[in-house]
Amino acid sequence: MDSKNIKLTLSYDGSQYHGWQRQNNGISIQEVIEENLKTMVGAPVKLIASGRTDAGVHALNQVCNFTTLSDIDPDAIKRGLNSLLPDDIHVKTAEYVPMEFHSRYSARSKVYEYSILNRKDPDVFLRHYLWHIRIPLDKKQMAGCLSALKGTHDFSSFRSSGSGNTNPVRSISKAELLETDGNDILRIIIEADGFLRHMVRNIVGTVAGAGLGRINADRFKEILESKDRRAAGIKAPAQGLFLMSVLY
Amino acid sequence: MDSKNIKLTLSYDGSQYHGWQRQNNGISIQEVIEENLKTMVGAPVKLIASGRTDAGVHALNQVCNFTTLSDIDPDAIKRGLNSLLPDDIHVKTAEYVPMEFHSRYSARSKVYEYSILNRKDPDVFLRHYLWHIRIPLDKKQMAGCLSALKGTHDFSSFRSSGSGNTNPVRSISKAELLETDGNDILRIIIEADGFLRHMVRNIVGTVAGAGLGRINADRFKEILESKDRRAAGIKAPAQGLFLMSVLY
Repeated sequence: MDSKNIKLTLSYDGSQYHGWQRQNNGISIQEVIEENLKTMVGAPVKLIASGRTDAGVHALNQVCNFTTLSDIDPDAIKRGLNSLLPDDIHVKTAEYVPMEFHSRYSARSKVYEYSILNRKDPDVFLRHYLWHIRIPLDKKQMAGCLSALKGTHDFSSFRSSGSGNTNPVRSISKAELLETDGNDILRIIIEADGFLRHMVRNIVGTVAGAGLGRINADRFKEILESKDRRAAGIKAPAQGLFLMSVLY
Repeated sequence: MDSKNIKLTLSYDGSQYHGWQRQNNGISIQEVIEENLKTMVGAPVKLIASGRTDAGVHALNQVCNFTTLSDIDPDAIKRGLNSLLPDDIHVKTAEYVPMEFHSRYSARSKVYEYSILNRKDPDVFLRHYLWHIRIPLDKKQMAGCLSALKGTHDFSSFRSSGSGNTNPVRSISKAELLETDGNDILRIIIEADGFLRHMVRNIVGTVAGAGLGRINADRFKEILESKDRRAAGIKAPAQGLFLMSVLY
């Protein structure tokens, strides 16, 4: 039997999980999928994802892959997994990929989106999917901060400690603020070739600080250039963050 | 101290509750609000709602009222309750109303909306807020059924047993099917002067049967006229149903 490499595209609601990665103190998305795959293919499976997502963070299109000696074809993997998985994890696609495909190392870029509800009243239906900020935000200042992020920089100012990454240089190709008419939701979209630990949430927390008038876009640029995490703002809460897509 | 009548407009995510009405076998929305109001005004409070919502059913604008001897003004009631209530129940407005105002008896009409996701793949983020039907629905047949509902009819065919209502005649002023471009969601909107037990869900289940080709709009009309619950289709699941507004 030849070994095959199977790529899965997943959406999941991260609210009930301790993040993507297997760990001892709670149920992870990786563990739930690996255990069900093991049942299906009859052997332990090791999933490689494009990257971890933290507890409470969601994915519209997380990508992962695994190698297997099993002959079950990808369509059957998709159908079988979806019948076994809880209803907050869904396999959107399953396909054979070349053996050299690696969900993390083959990725060219990833797109994250962070949603903020900016009005006085909360929305009970979106409470697990956005950050509620009651005070009106200055969108011009926020957009100014985001445009300073574009390009290749040392993002140490927005990296949480505890990361295993040694090189803090990343390239951001997109960083923009979008408004949708009539629903008071601001969306921050960031595309980069890679992300440091909590990078999007630390950026969003600092950009929100500019929206609240605590800093301006010039100061934001200084914070980026300082390469000092203590200069930046708070880490935005997990539930507003979505991994939107991984590009190969 | 004079007695005052206070009207509340609420939104709630019904997923975690055994419906609006107090009961012994689970936590109800009424109980949660009444207990917190009791803490605030220092005396037991009896909430009167525009109507019950079943377990798992949501509200964007449920209306209820209560009388109290307390001098706490409505603004303080709103702020206080919102600080005490769990994050799946929110008080949108609180206001004094005349003593004769009664959330149920004063209502002229209520509007319900039911959402169906009509595509092969589920949406993990909307799993508590719609009914997922994988097979493509015939929207023309569904719209045909809905238009037969308008006007004053005996709705016994769509009333679940166990209802205390004796008169099954209601007047439906609006019954329509809406599509939103690009998201595969169908919305059924029904406005009436009152609703029988499970009436919207029984209608939606039968209309979905027409969408699936089991019956056509002519047969739907016969079912309505038969005044026989056994003639109608299944009861649609609770989670797709929203109480949108109550008109006075």
